Amino acid sequence: SDEFAAMLDRLGEVAVRTGLNVLPGQQVILTAPLHAVPLVRRVTEHAYRAGASLVTTFYSDDQTTLARYQYGAEDTFDTAAGWLAKGMADGFREGAARMAITGGNPALLAGQKPDHVSRASKAASIVNRPAMEIITNFDINWCIVAAATPEWAQQVFPHLPPQQALEELWRAIFAVSRLTGPDPVAEWATHNAILHRRATFLNDARYAALHFTGPGTDLTVGLADGHDWAAGAEKAGNGVVCNPNIPTEEVFTTPHRLKVEGHVSSTKPLSHQGTLIDGIHVRFEAGRIVDMQATKGQDVLARVLDTDEGSCRLGEVALVPHSSPISRSGILFQNTLFDENAASHIALGQAYTKCMRDTEGQDEASLAARGANTSMIHIDWMIGSGQVDVDAVTADGSHTPLMRQGEWVVEA
Amino acid sequence: SDEFAAMLDRLGEVAVRTGLNVLPGQQVILTAPLHAVPLVRRVTEHAYRAGASLVTTFYSDDQTTLARYQYGAEDTFDTAAGWLAKGMADGFREGAARMAITGGNPALLAGQKPDHVSRASKAASIVNRPAMEIITNFDINWCIVAAATPEWAQQVFPHLPPQQALEELWRAIFAVSRLTGPDPVAEWATHNAILHRRATFLNDARYAALHFTGPGTDLTVGLADGHDWAAGAEKAGNGVVCNPNIPTEEVFTTPHRLKVEGHVSSTKPLSHQGTLIDGIHVRFEAGRIVDMQATKGQDVLARVLDTDEGSCRLGEVALVPHSSPISRSGILFQNTLFDENAASHIALGQAYTKCMRDTEGQDEASLAARGANTSMIHIDWMIGSGQVDVDAVTADGSHTPLMRQGEWVVEA
Ligand SMILES: [Zn+2]
Ligand SMILES: [Zn+2]
Ligand SMILES: [Zn+2]
Ligand SMILES: [Zn+2]
Repeated sequence: SDEFAAMLDRLGEVAVRTGLNVLPGQQVILTAPLHAVPLVRRVTEHAYRAGASLVTTFYSDDQTTLARYQYGAEDTFDTAAGWLAKGMADGFREGAARMAITGGNPALLAGQKPDHVSRASKAASIVNRPAMEIITNFDINWCIVAAATPEWAQQVFPHLPPQQALEELWRAIFAVSRLTGPDPVAEWATHNAILHRRATFLNDARYAALHFTGPGTDLTVGLADGHDWAAGAEKAGNGVVCNPNIPTEEVFTTPHRLKVEGHVSSTKPLSHQGTLIDGIHVRFEAGRIVDMQATKGQDVLARVLDTDEGSCRLGEVALVPHSSPISRSGILFQNTLFDENAASHIALGQAYTKCMRDTEGQDEASLAARGANTSMIHIDWMIGSGQVDVDAVTADGSHTPLMRQGEWVVEA
Repeated sequence: SDEFAAMLDRLGEVAVRTGLNVLPGQQVILTAPLHAVPLVRRVTEHAYRAGASLVTTFYSDDQTTLARYQYGAEDTFDTAAGWLAKGMADGFREGAARMAITGGNPALLAGQKPDHVSRASKAASIVNRPAMEIITNFDINWCIVAAATPEWAQQVFPHLPPQQALEELWRAIFAVSRLTGPDPVAEWATHNAILHRRATFLNDARYAALHFTGPGTDLTVGLADGHDWAAGAEKAGNGVVCNPNIPTEEVFTTPHRLKVEGHVSSTKPLSHQGTLIDGIHVRFEAGRIVDMQATKGQDVLARVLDTDEGSCRLGEVALVPHSSPISRSGILFQNTLFDENAASHIALGQAYTKCMRDTEGQDEASLAARGANTSMIHIDWMIGSGQVDVDAVTADGSHTPLMRQGEWVVEA
């Protein structure tokens, strides 16, 4: 419909202008699922209008991805396209910006041999490391947005007929990406300003810890020494202010890897590589998960926690109001880009360097000494809800209410 | 339909087994227009079945290609994706095979600013040179096949409704690619054997020249010193025997750049970058075109001949019987992969090193001294028909009939 086309164009415009903020003359490296062709075309047009010199798109096709697992020979799963990963990393170093359109089938590889999947995934992450480091170090402007695809929509709305599920998912993406008002680019500027005021307030306060209380939750999350709160639009290493995630609702920072104490319950299911993990309850001692259970997917969670030394410690804590558009939508997107913006959350695994101050010249060991966790994984996990309160704890142990029943009580 | 699906699968199988002959464990780098997704999926499945370790596909999208010319800024057209071209060349050097699916709209850029088109094309060819050299030196196994696309079909069958044009073009591709018999892979083996016998016959004979006669044609094409006739499946530098073109009907070699005399008329229109050049008549002296006219597109042909020193000399002469399936189809495909296999032809511009013997350690200058032409262009141009005869000329000047009324008269 015309209305759908107009909304898709808005998403393309916000992705390019607010999300990526592409520089005149800058190349754009874009990845997308095949089903996202119409959005890729909107993004590409807006990128050229904004002065991009060249947009290069890499499509992934679930069917050919699956074909590898169905027909590939046993000894081929340790192969990855190193030549391509190196080429993309070179592209970033030479100045290209990075846009990703997410939306593949979250359960695509659920039925394939776990050994093949993990070998292929490990081979890919080894060759992709240089490019990933450029992204995680925030050296360049980058942005992720989502496109609804039939398989993803069916996972999210299993009881709807396919076409209706797809339309419903698109509607949800447009709504929670703040595109339905009269001027989405202006609305995003306002939204960024609110997020920045919250981050500034928390940074100025220099709290020592956060205290979460709610049903099945009494958790103290110590913050890393010299942690920095981040939110919304941020300045990348190349000087470009971009919004890495569209949508984004979180204000987030680095917890101290040794200073998490108490127990906590998940408030939403966690979708991990096609499996839903639900009813999680864990206990922390000295930052480490010492006891864990889940009513669903406990074996998958156990394997995740077993990944490495840092996978049972926290790398992120984030505050999201219960009234966020994603939370109000009531939809479990089974995609972190959305789900982590539905509720306050913690993440198992790797911390973000950009959520630490004065990192210039500091190596991993010195950041770890200040509390920043290291791991191969980073898995966000929702612990906020309308029944969860959050207090800030100062160094001398006094408490200040930050959130009550999931909403901010301090006005930034 | 089921029949279409079966034929598409055959094309995928012949492309992988006969065309590329992918090695077990070899990566495949595949390029394709977006409309070729169904063929890409068949090729990918057959590649994995044949032992490919990883198939990486790059799609081109006419719409986003056009968007660059419609919305791109004036100073951006000299940009190319050098990081990607370098990555692909690295992939080939590390052992990947190359498959290309052609079929884009031949007239896509016809309406865009020639200056923008030529700047972008020049920038791309500069960065693509290392990868192209690997292909033209035949260092690795590679293959081109075609997929029908709506825009191409409309160019070929302008008077048919779009869906019917597309079906007609697919039918033609399947037929002329020798896929409609009971066992296409076996039929290709037979076809390759026939082509090889013809090439061996011509190589054993060591003719000095070919003499073409027909309506408006009396042309003597001297052959290069130590020329080599090639046809069908050939062994690449990496030891893999592959069919670089599916379909292929030609037996071809290197003419002597200084020894072409007489005049010649084109027998089919030549499609060049969206323009049809027709009714060509040229006169050669000492290998050089000294007089040229065309009833259609003469200005375009004049510009082509003006490209560089080698663009008005010949780089290839090829013999194709008038009864070839492409000729019998009566279709002008406006795509060299097909049209050059419809009739005996000559090509303006660059010669193929693989059509010269004893090239080891020879530089461009020594190959040129033996008669091999050099140019930025290589444009095939049809001069055979059912009314054209071809004689072979030996060093002592005696003539032997090779083709009469477009058909072979010597049985190889
Ligand atoms: Zn987060
Ligand atoms: Zn996170
Ligand atoms: Zn040829
Ligand atoms: Zn040629």
